[in-house]
Amino acid sequence: MKLQLEEIIEEIKRFINERDWQQFHDGKNLAISLSIEASELLETFLWKKDTEADLNKVKQELADVLYNAFLLSDLYGFNIKQIISDKLKVNEVKYPIDKSKGTNKKYDEL
Amino acid sequence: MKLQLEEIIEEIKRFINERDWQQFHDGKNLAISLSIEASELLETFLWKKDTEADLNKVKQELADVLYNAFLLSDLYGFNIKQIISDKLKVNEVKYPIDKSKGTNKKYDEL
Amino acid sequence: MKLQLEEIIEEIKRFINERDWQQFHDGKNLAISLSIEASELLETFLWKKDTEADLNKVKQELADVLYNAFLLSDLYGFNIKQIISDKLKVNEVKYPIDKSKGTNKKYDEL
Amino acid sequence: MKLQLEEIIEEIKRFINERDWQQFHDGKNLAISLSIEASELLETFLWKKDTEADLNKVKQELADVLYNAFLLSDLYGFNIKQIISDKLKVNEVKYPIDKSKGTNKKYDEL
Repeated sequence: MKLQLEEIIEEIKRFINERDWQQFHDGKNLAISLSIEASELLETFLWKKDTEADLNKVKQELADVLYNAFLLSDLYGFNIKQIISDKLKVNEVKYPIDKSKGTNKKYDEL
Repeated sequence: MKLQLEEIIEEIKRFINERDWQQFHDGKNLAISLSIEASELLETFLWKKDTEADLNKVKQELADVLYNAFLLSDLYGFNIKQIISDKLKVNEVKYPIDKSKGTNKKYDEL
Repeated sequence: MKLQLEEIIEEIKRFINERDWQQFHDGKNLAISLSIEASELLETFLWKKDTEADLNKVKQELADVLYNAFLLSDLYGFNIKQIISDKLKVNEVKYPIDKSKGTNKKYDEL
Repeated sequence: MKLQLEEIIEEIKRFINERDWQQFHDGKNLAISLSIEASELLETFLWKKDTEADLNKVKQELADVLYNAFLLSDLYGFNIKQIISDKLKVNEVKYPIDKSKGTNKKYDEL
């Protein structure tokens, strides 16, 4: 049985391959694209209170962010579950529970 | 059986809950955080050729991007597979295969 | 008499030239750098209320943003006063006073 | 005689005041806006070689970046010439000429 994440990434790659866009997708350009999409997502909240954003736009921009993040992950052959687990372990050291609980401080201010 | 994406999001939320950080995680602040992490990912390529990036850093920064994107998705109750499928359908109209094949142009330049 | 902006840009270029960094400064890489610095500026406000930011950090990150913006402007030979005047004229059409007064809406929502 | 930068900032503030937009312009929201504009500037280079960008778009997006950066500087009463000079002094320590000459490495890799 295929895993859900694999199914999503296959659907994205079918879209890309039909348009012959793989040629543009090196890591640096995908990272640029991802950063731009994350800004477009942020723009749905610009000058607004948190609750005033148009959720349909949020949904579409978040999809664009994930589309780029999944392509980048696929390009380098990363296992998404693994890299997030690994990063959480790093963050557990940077942000020990007793020091970081309930505070919005960055690790170098703790 | 739990789906893989649900498992990842549960692991992230356990990390958050142990630190009592839900209080900071409204949509606007998560979108800001996501945008900053996408920039940190991009920074691994700054002043460099695509192939010169440190892949261990790429991996860690991409994990941070996904961590924020998954939290945002969870906050609004989005189904990740669904929102990406829906966005690909929108993009199929914006980028018809015959006009967009092999070109790096934006839809408004096609 | 030299204009103030020219003096600033000369000071930045002296710093660059002493390090032989012009070779990295094409438009695309400067735009990447500028975008990363703008994110670092934004990070001084992350998870915080507007008034909680460390103003000394804001100052330093804003200087980095301006440093990159001035280098980019210089690379293309733009006149900063002119390009801002020109853009304000474009925005006056996009945001007519009677429609845009006191509202946080984007021009395509007016 | 007025300085050039003061003239530019006055022209921007006249545009803002006519639209009664000061109410939205706290530091955090201006920093968000600046970050989004920097991304739009970067987008003019997306999927392209450095020389393929549309310079008229570069010009307009750079104007938007500077517009936001100048407003932020004005909000906090910073002296632009001063904050850049101060930051260059910090960078001279982070990037000593003998170590940083001709290399694209970040200060923590030198």
